[in-house]
Amino acid sequence: MLNLAVMGSGSGSNFQSLLNAVRDGRIEARVVCVLSDNADAFILERARRAGVPAYFVDASPFRTKLDGAGEARALEILRAHGADFIALAGFMRLVKAGLLRAFPGRIVNIHPSLLPAFPGLQAWRQALDYGVKVSGCTVHFVDEGTDTGPIILQRTVLVREDDTPESLHARIQEQEHIAYPLALQWIAEGRLRIVGRHVIGAPNSV
Amino acid sequence: MLNLAVMGSGSGSNFQSLLNAVRDGRIEARVVCVLSDNADAFILERARRAGVPAYFVDASPFRTKLDGAGEARALEILRAHGADFIALAGFMRLVKAGLLRAFPGRIVNIHPSLLPAFPGLQAWRQALDYGVKVSGCTVHFVDEGTDTGPIILQRTVLVREDDTPESLHARIQEQEHIAYPLALQWIAEGRLRIVGRHVIGAPNSV
Repeated sequence: MLNLAVMGSGSGSNFQSLLNAVRDGRIEARVVCVLSDNADAFILERARRAGVPAYFVDASPFRTKLDGAGEARALEILRAHGADFIALAGFMRLVKAGLLRAFPGRIVNIHPSLLPAFPGLQAWRQALDYGVKVSGCTVHFVDEGTDTGPIILQRTVLVREDDTPESLHARIQEQEHIAYPLALQWIAEGRLRIVGRHVIGAPNSV
Repeated sequence: MLNLAVMGSGSGSNFQSLLNAVRDGRIEARVVCVLSDNADAFILERARRAGVPAYFVDASPFRTKLDGAGEARALEILRAHGADFIALAGFMRLVKAGLLRAFPGRIVNIHPSLLPAFPGLQAWRQALDYGVKVSGCTVHFVDEGTDTGPIILQRTVLVREDDTPESLHARIQEQEHIAYPLALQWIAEGRLRIVGRHVIGAPNSV
């Protein structure tokens, strides 16, 4: 049984989809704690309502990474709850070496584009500005880079001519809420292996 | 009726798919000539067998672009045959300002990836090496960059764990042979407009 920690900075809609999947038995895991670098993030409120231990971790003075004292505090919380796997869900900071070494190949993220296209912030807006006709979402293992780790699963979304950033983002999120529980159940089942940049063991055509 | 010229450097499988579509009435166009920078390219042989005027254009001394005397010779041939639109089909050189100015918004290309991911050579191999789970092909208008112009149409291909570069390339080519005739018929119908980086008027969900 996977002891899953979730880290996020925002509303936590992906956290909610994971929580729902755990409750429905679609992911054989426990969600042991939720961490946020944003004291006001709704993901913390969602966790509390669900009875999941929820922590604000002060990541200052850094603005774009989790390092130093904030990283040490996160590790302390993760260990206290026996977390053995981390799912990032809208976590807006780079994860650094301390956390990566403590959870080698055991941190995943979901990103709202078909990586390697449109890494970084507001990927749906980047895609719309670029003028692609297909975008989607990507679940991937986390490495030192920004959205560069080995890819587990991608799901596509057609871009419409009348899409706004909001409408495209909403359709991508629908696919995220399908993709992330699937990927985490594969992890819970021990199906996946990382070989170089490749993730082996994921079913095709999902 | 579109007077279409095709430029390629290789076997011309996309040229063949366009020719078939023209013959079947799926593209309302005439293929008025074929140009290649490679005297031995099979695309020239295909054209001759089909009774389409076929020309080798010597692009030396340049190695990666069509410029100078080669560009001038190409323009001469295109004009002589009344070409009013150019489809690149495996043309391995950058098109430069002279041709772009003579055919403004009237040159298209097909690329074997979901751009902006994997521009440049052997995109299917780049995709496989990166470890993506979804790739595909892109039809786009040509601008000064390498595979950077406004996107008309993209079709997706799932990457399999046992794919070789050859097997993935073959499945992407199947989608290219669907995508390119569709895009050219939309052009022949006068449906498409370029607005900044966006192509307006393409049907969704094809």
